[in-house]
Amino acid sequence: MKRGFGSDNHSGISPEILQAIADANVDHALAYGDDEWCARAEALFREHFGRQAKVYFVFNGTGANVLNIDAMCRSHEAVVCAETAHINVDECGAPQRVVGCRLLTVDTPDGKLTPDLVRTRLHGFGFEHHSQPKAISISQPTELGTLYTLQEIRSLADLAHSHNMLLHVDGARLANAAVALGCSFAEMTAEAGVDCLSFGGTKNGMLMGESVVILNPALDVDIKYRRKQMTQLSSKMRFMAAQFDAYLTTGLWRRNAEHSNRMAQLLHSELQQVEGVRVMYPVQVNSLFAQLPSLVWHRLQEEYFFYDWNEANDVVRWMCSFDTTEDDIHHFVAALKRLL
Amino acid sequence: MKRGFGSDNHSGISPEILQAIADANVDHALAYGDDEWCARAEALFREHFGRQAKVYFVFNGTGANVLNIDAMCRSHEAVVCAETAHINVDECGAPQRVVGCRLLTVDTPDGKLTPDLVRTRLHGFGFEHHSQPKAISISQPTELGTLYTLQEIRSLADLAHSHNMLLHVDGARLANAAVALGCSFAEMTAEAGVDCLSFGGTKNGMLMGESVVILNPALDVDIKYRRKQMTQLSSKMRFMAAQFDAYLTTGLWRRNAEHSNRMAQLLHSELQQVEGVRVMYPVQVNSLFAQLPSLVWHRLQEEYFFYDWNEANDVVRWMCSFDTTEDDIHHFVAALKRLL
Amino acid sequence: MKRGFGSDNHSGISPEILQAIADANVDHALAYGDDEWCARAEALFREHFGRQAKVYFVFNGTGANVLNIDAMCRSHEAVVCAETAHINVDECGAPQRVVGCRLLTVDTPDGKLTPDLVRTRLHGFGFEHHSQPKAISISQPTELGTLYTLQEIRSLADLAHSHNMLLHVDGARLANAAVALGCSFAEMTAEAGVDCLSFGGTKNGMLMGESVVILNPALDVDIKYRRKQMTQLSSKMRFMAAQFDAYLTTGLWRRNAEHSNRMAQLLHSELQQVEGVRVMYPVQVNSLFAQLPSLVWHRLQEEYFFYDWNEANDVVRWMCSFDTTEDDIHHFVAALKRLL
Amino acid sequence: MKRGFGSDNHSGISPEILQAIADANVDHALAYGDDEWCARAEALFREHFGRQAKVYFVFNGTGANVLNIDAMCRSHEAVVCAETAHINVDECGAPQRVVGCRLLTVDTPDGKLTPDLVRTRLHGFGFEHHSQPKAISISQPTELGTLYTLQEIRSLADLAHSHNMLLHVDGARLANAAVALGCSFAEMTAEAGVDCLSFGGTKNGMLMGESVVILNPALDVDIKYRRKQMTQLSSKMRFMAAQFDAYLTTGLWRRNAEHSNRMAQLLHSELQQVEGVRVMYPVQVNSLFAQLPSLVWHRLQEEYFFYDWNEANDVVRWMCSFDTTEDDIHHFVAALKRLL
Repeated sequence: MKRGFGSDNHSGISPEILQAIADANVDHALAYGDDEWCARAEALFREHFGRQAKVYFVFNGTGANVLNIDAMCRSHEAVVCAETAHINVDECGAPQRVVGCRLLTVDTPDGKLTPDLVRTRLHGFGFEHHSQPKAISISQPTELGTLYTLQEIRSLADLAHSHNMLLHVDGARLANAAVALGCSFAEMTAEAGVDCLSFGGTKNGMLMGESVVILNPALDVDIKYRRKQMTQLSSKMRFMAAQFDAYLTTGLWRRNAEHSNRMAQLLHSELQQVEGVRVMYPVQVNSLFAQLPSLVWHRLQEEYFFYDWNEANDVVRWMCSFDTTEDDIHHFVAALKRLL
Repeated sequence: MKRGFGSDNHSGISPEILQAIADANVDHALAYGDDEWCARAEALFREHFGRQAKVYFVFNGTGANVLNIDAMCRSHEAVVCAETAHINVDECGAPQRVVGCRLLTVDTPDGKLTPDLVRTRLHGFGFEHHSQPKAISISQPTELGTLYTLQEIRSLADLAHSHNMLLHVDGARLANAAVALGCSFAEMTAEAGVDCLSFGGTKNGMLMGESVVILNPALDVDIKYRRKQMTQLSSKMRFMAAQFDAYLTTGLWRRNAEHSNRMAQLLHSELQQVEGVRVMYPVQVNSLFAQLPSLVWHRLQEEYFFYDWNEANDVVRWMCSFDTTEDDIHHFVAALKRLL
Repeated sequence: MKRGFGSDNHSGISPEILQAIADANVDHALAYGDDEWCARAEALFREHFGRQAKVYFVFNGTGANVLNIDAMCRSHEAVVCAETAHINVDECGAPQRVVGCRLLTVDTPDGKLTPDLVRTRLHGFGFEHHSQPKAISISQPTELGTLYTLQEIRSLADLAHSHNMLLHVDGARLANAAVALGCSFAEMTAEAGVDCLSFGGTKNGMLMGESVVILNPALDVDIKYRRKQMTQLSSKMRFMAAQFDAYLTTGLWRRNAEHSNRMAQLLHSELQQVEGVRVMYPVQVNSLFAQLPSLVWHRLQEEYFFYDWNEANDVVRWMCSFDTTEDDIHHFVAALKRLL
Repeated sequence: MKRGFGSDNHSGISPEILQAIADANVDHALAYGDDEWCARAEALFREHFGRQAKVYFVFNGTGANVLNIDAMCRSHEAVVCAETAHINVDECGAPQRVVGCRLLTVDTPDGKLTPDLVRTRLHGFGFEHHSQPKAISISQPTELGTLYTLQEIRSLADLAHSHNMLLHVDGARLANAAVALGCSFAEMTAEAGVDCLSFGGTKNGMLMGESVVILNPALDVDIKYRRKQMTQLSSKMRFMAAQFDAYLTTGLWRRNAEHSNRMAQLLHSELQQVEGVRVMYPVQVNSLFAQLPSLVWHRLQEEYFFYDWNEANDVVRWMCSFDTTEDDIHHFVAALKRLL
C-alpha cells in the first residue's frame, strides 16, 4: 500500500530500531524484564523523565492507558477526561472492563481540558452514590493534534492535587509534543506535576513499544502483578527494551517526530493556497483536520487512505508519519486540487 | 547471559523471523490486521488447522488463553483444567479478573486430564449456586512436558461435547507436540474435536507472536471487540503476521521444535549415566524435570540459570530451546557430574 | 424524624405490606424462589406485564438495573442513556464494575431521551475500537419527574430495534407513571416495545422489593446464574414475593402512587401563590423541582429534610411519598412562605 | 410446606423480629443507613465485637462475603480457603466476578483449615506470575457443621499475620458457633485475631439481615463506595438495623441458636439407636451429615425436604432450625426407622 495519510501507525519501522532488535538477538536473556536491555532502558527513562521515574513496558497504547488508570483508581473512582479522549472513544470500553471505573467526560472545543472544564465534574466527593473523581487524564498532543503548554499542564496538575487527585498524560505521541514545544519529556511531565503517563514509541518508528511511566512513587504499588494479570507482560522483553534504548539514545525519537511534524506543517502551508478546504484546529504536531466537500474527500480516498473524523461535518484527518516525504505531500495536495 | 536451560523464552529470534520482519518493512499498511501479511497468515492458519479455522493474533500466551476462555465462557461458567495448568498457576489470576469465571482444577499425576478426572468436576449443572462447567482446557504439551495422544484428546472432546461443553488447547508449545507425535496441527486439534486453541510462536523462535485459533464457528462471535477491550489488539499487526508467515511456510516451526525436542532427548540420554538424578516424567518434548539433591542443583544454578519446579521435593525444570547446542548439553551434564 | 420531602424511600412500610409478610410467616418454604408466594407473584407479573413476562426478584434498584443491563449487553457493548439517568449518576459505577460496559450519555433538557438525541450516539457499528451500542435505557418517570408518553416509548423501541438494539426501562417508580398516564403496566412496557425493565416497589410502600422483568424472551438466558453471581439472590424470597403479591392484588400500588402524585400536585398548586419559587419541570408524578434563593432553601432545610439537586443553580427536589398528608403540604408551604 | 430439615433458611421469621420491624415503621427516616436504628445497631455491634468494630449492613451472605474479600484483596491477590467453603462452592463464582481474585483451595477432612494445610498454599510471594496470597477465609461453623476452637482461630490468625495476610470468618451461622463454644462474638473474632467477618442473622430467625464487620481498622477504606458499587446498599436500611437491634438486645440470637443446636443434638442422640445411619462429622451446631442407603434417603425425601450433600457417597445433610420442634425430630426419626 502506498504511503498515505491514514495514521502514523500505518508506517513501518525505522532502520535504527530493526538494527537494535538484531543487535539484542544474542545468547539468552531472562524473560519478563530481568535483562540488561531492560536495565539500560530503565536508566534511560530516569534520564528523560526524572530520577524517580519507574517504567513498565507494555504491548500497546490501550495497555499503557489501562495500566495507568489501574494504578491511579479503584473501580469506584473516576477519571475526568475529554469526550474525545482515546481512553473514552477508542478503546472499546477497556477501562470499564479491566478497571471497572467510570470516565467523566467533558466536551471541549479543541480536545483540551481546562481547569474550568474539569471543575464541572468535581462534585459528589464523599457521597457514596457517586463515583469519586480521582484522576484527570489528558492527551499530549490531543487526539485533535492540539497541545497543552507546560503552564496548562501545571494548572491541571495543581487542580488535581488540590482535590487529592492525580494527573495522567496519554503520551502515545509525546515525542511529537516535545519537539513542538521544544522541551524535554521531564519538563512536560514530572516537572509540570504529572503523576504518571503512557509513553509510546510505536507511532514514531518503533516496531512495537509502549510504556507506563510512574512519576509519583506513591502510585508504584503492585503494578507488576497488575500488568501481568491484565495480560500485558511480555516474555522476550529485551526486544522491546532494545527498541526504547535505540529510540532514546540515538535521538531517533526527536528526528522522527521533528520530521512528521514538519511534514504536517508543509501540508498545512500547501493547503493555504487551496480553496475549499478549511483547517479545523491549530496544526501543532503531525496531524491536520480538514473540512471539505464530501464528494471531494470521498474521491480522494480512492487514491489515498485516510479516516473521516466526523462524517456528519465532512471533517477528515490527515496524519503524517516519520516516513512521509515532501513528495508525498506535493502529490497529495496536487490530487486534492484536481478534485476540488 | 550464556545459553542455559531456564526457558524456551530465554532464547532469541530465529534469523528467518528477523528477515521476515525486515521484508515486511515496506511502505504503509493498514493497522489492526487489515493488511496483506495478515491475509496471508490467515490463509496459512486455515491450511494448517482446517478450512474453518479463524485466527486472531494477540501479544502473549496469557492474552491468547484469556481470549479463548472469554470466547467459550461467561463469568458464571467454569473451565475444568489441571491444577498445574498455566491458566491456573501462572497467569496471576488473569482469567478471574478479565473473564470473571472460575477454574475447576483437578490434581493429576502428570499434568494430563483424563475423562475420569474431569468427570469429578462435572456436577451442579442447572444449580444456580454453582458455576456451570462449560469448558475443558488442556495444555499440549503439558506444563510437565507430557503429551496427550490424539485419541486422548478426542476422548476429552467427546466428553466435553456430550455435556454441551467445549475443549480448549493451550498450545504455547504446540509445535513441539506436533513433531513429537508426528502429526499435523489439524490432526491434533480440529480433527480431534478441539473447539479452540492458543497457538504460540514466541517460545519457538519468533520475536513475539501468539494467536487464538477458533475451530468451532459457533464461538466466533464478537471476538474482535473482546480482543480490543482486553488490550490485546496490535496496531502494526503486519509484523506479527509476517513472523507467522515465515514460521509456517518455511517449516521453521518444525525445524526449531524438532531441534529443541532432540536436545531434550540428548540431555535425557546423557543423564542415564548420571547417578543421583531422577527424571520425573516421560521426556516427550523439550523439557525435562529432574529430582536431585538440593545442594547440587543450588550449586548448578550458580553456573546455569534454571527454575526450581517444586523446591519442597527438589525437582527442577531444564528446558531446551531452538538454539540449544549439543555442546551446551555436554557442558551442562559435565558440570552436573562435577557437582554430584 | 418528621415526615419531609427528601425522598420516597424515607417513608416506611404500608400496613398491607407488613400484614402480607406476617401472613407468609408460616411453616417452612424452600429458599431462593421455589415457593408458593413466588409462584403467585410470578403469575401476577404475567397478568400485569403480559404473558411472556418473566420476573427475577432482586434486593434493590441498583441490582435491578445492573441485572437488566447484564441481560442485554456484554462488556464490549454500550447503553445509551440520559446524562441524568440513575444508572449513570447514582450507582457509583455499578454497571461499569459489574457488567464492564460503557454508558453513552446524552444531555437532555428534561431527563427524556428522544430518537434524535439517541441517534447522536448510534455510530461506530462494526468498528472494533468502539463500544457497540446495544441498548437504550430510559427512566419512567425520569429522575426529573417527567414522563414519556406511550408513543414516545414506542418510538424509542422502534429506533432500538431497527438497530438490533434493545430498550430497557428503569421503573423504580413505574407505579407513579402508570397512574399519571392512566395506563396499565403492560401498555407502558411490553405493548410499547420495551424489552426489559426494572420494576420497583420499595419507593411506593414496600419494605424492600425490586425486580427485573424480562419481556423479550430472547434475553431470558442464564439470568438466574447471573443474579446469583452478582450477589442479588435472596434466600427467604417468599417474604419479598409476598410483598409483591399484596402490592399487585390489593391495588396498593395504585392507591399509594395516586396519593403521592396527588400530593405533588397539591404542592404544585400551593406554590402557584408563592412568589420567588420557580418550578423547573412539568410536575407529572410525585416530585417537584424548584428554584429559589439559596438563603431560603438552606433555612428551610433546618426544618425539613430535602436534597439540593443542583446547588450551583439553586434547584432543590421536593418529593412526596405515599404517607405525605395534605397537612404536611400546608405546613411546608407555610414554612416556605415565612422564609421568603 | 411442612417443617423439614432442608436448611435453616427454610424457616420463617422470629416474632420478635417482625415486631421490631413494625416498631420501626414510624414517620420518616433517612435512607442508606443515616438513621437512629442503624446508629443503635452500630453501637450494639461494637458492644458484641469490640470497640473498634465497624459494621456495614448488606442483603445476603454472598454480599457479605464478597464485600469482605473486596476489603482484604485486590484482584491480583488470593484467598486461601477450604475446598468446601461457601465462597468457593456456593456463590456461583461471585468473588471471581466481583473482586476478580483467585481462591486457593485446600482439601480438608472436616471443612476446617489448619496452619499446616494453609501453608501448602503460601508460596510464590513476590513472583508476578502468581496471585499473591493475601487472606485466609474460614467458616465458623464450617459448612460441615464443625467448629474451630478459639485457639485454632488464633493460630490461623497468627499464621496470616506473620505473612502480612488477613483472616476472614464467614459467620453466616456465627450465633450457633458462639452458643456451642460458650463464648462471646468478640472472643471468637476480634480477640482471636480475626480481621473481618461476615455476620449473619437470616439463618437464625431474621427476615433478612447480613453484615460485614470490620475489626482491623486498616481495612476500613472506601467500603461504603464498594458496597454501593457491588449493588449491596439498602435504601430503607432502618428495617434491617431494627432486626439486628432486636436480635442482639433481646438475646434472640442466643435463644434461637441454642434451640437449633439442641435439636441437632436430639436428632443425633435419637440416631444412635438407628442402625444403618452413619453420622459423618462431629455434630457441634445445628446440622448433621449422615450416610445411609440411597434407597432410604430417596424415599425419606418424599416426606421431608433435605439436600443430598454428596450423592456419590450417599451423604445427606439434615439441618435444624430455630423453629424445629422435638416432635419434628421424633416424627422424622420414626419415618426414617420405618424406611430402614
